[in-house]
Amino acid sequence: MILHHHPFLPACRFARLALAEHAIDVELKLEPFWEARPEFVAINPGLTLPMAYDNGRGPLIGARVLMEYIDERYGDMRAAHRLMPADPFQRGEVRRLVDWFLIKFEDEVSGPLVTERILKLEIPAKRGGGAPDSGAMRAARQNIVGHMHYLGALTASRHWLAGDSLSFADLAAAAALSTVDYLGEAPWDADPAVKQWYQRVKSRPAFRPLLTDKARLVAPAPHYADLDF
Amino acid sequence: MILHHHPFLPACRFARLALAEHAIDVELKLEPFWEARPEFVAINPGLTLPMAYDNGRGPLIGARVLMEYIDERYGDMRAAHRLMPADPFQRGEVRRLVDWFLIKFEDEVSGPLVTERILKLEIPAKRGGGAPDSGAMRAARQNIVGHMHYLGALTASRHWLAGDSLSFADLAAAAALSTVDYLGEAPWDADPAVKQWYQRVKSRPAFRPLLTDKARLVAPAPHYADLDF
Repeated sequence: MILHHHPFLPACRFARLALAEHAIDVELKLEPFWEARPEFVAINPGLTLPMAYDNGRGPLIGARVLMEYIDERYGDMRAAHRLMPADPFQRGEVRRLVDWFLIKFEDEVSGPLVTERILKLEIPAKRGGGAPDSGAMRAARQNIVGHMHYLGALTASRHWLAGDSLSFADLAAAAALSTVDYLGEAPWDADPAVKQWYQRVKSRPAFRPLLTDKARLVAPAPHYADLDF
Repeated sequence: MILHHHPFLPACRFARLALAEHAIDVELKLEPFWEARPEFVAINPGLTLPMAYDNGRGPLIGARVLMEYIDERYGDMRAAHRLMPADPFQRGEVRRLVDWFLIKFEDEVSGPLVTERILKLEIPAKRGGGAPDSGAMRAARQNIVGHMHYLGALTASRHWLAGDSLSFADLAAAAALSTVDYLGEAPWDADPAVKQWYQRVKSRPAFRPLLTDKARLVAPAPHYADLDF
């Protein structure tokens, strides 16, 4: 599969995790979406990442579109370890949580922090780059507290976020948190159960490539790649 | 099915259309989400609507969660007229467009217009109600122009938004546009093909209940319920 991506967008990290869990070979292509390249706009007017092609067919645009495709096309390969449960209401719970982390958490936490602290350093001023907005960062740092409590409530009653098994919900949440953790902005002391859950996801072989990602102008927090942080 | 909803949220209108197209009996329950009733927060911490129960099981939270459930559980009933295509890439295109209208169009157009012109009149001041923000309305009125062009590009090359057949994409787009049209904010003169497409969706029996919705303090535009507007 070919995946057009940016390494610090949670939706793209989620796609990489989902593909790696299914052992699907991926060729990554970096897309500097803020440049709005005409060829990219023509096929993807929302400039949405990730965007994938499978065996020359596509595009599959957006992380949740790709998630459903991966499950429908390649889900059988994981058999009993499928990342989408069989029960229709549990499937709904997985989808709800994926939306929570890729839309709500992104709006309130990961989007602002990644934009202000990583992307704005790479984006030219005429396309919206420049100095970080300290108000946006402050709001995101307040918002993450509520999300850590919510993760705490989920991990207190469930082994994985959507139930007894690893699912797309865990990958989406961990992908989003990993971008925040790179920046040293994840308050792990808030809840030991959340930290243990994240350690379990982080220890999966699929996660390893994410831990070697480097932003060009921002170094990772010292514990970022450490499995025993 | 029991559907907790608000009549002017596009996501809830989309759910009602999808259920009606599948001829599923629905009991509607109005949820004044801004009140954040403790019983509602406890099961639905994001206060996300619509929320559904089917035969006592649930909740199914969010329009896209409900869409996948309806298709998986009841899609066979529509046989050749199923609202989700069989081809995996066309399925991706339907999902991409549903997200476009329920997330992007909602963020940029329908959310601000409905919030400023309808909801803020109903919501108490201490919960965010009050006078409309003219800047937010002005931005939404500018944003809708680009979206009408995009709809024009889609309807110029396709009979329905995602291809040759009616799909969830048409229902999501028409649901979102209908809230804007209630307010007289849909610039139908911009593109005759868009207007014709909307007339086709609006003429479906499933659409009729939406045309009788009334906001408590805002009258509909004169042409709102007219099929030959």
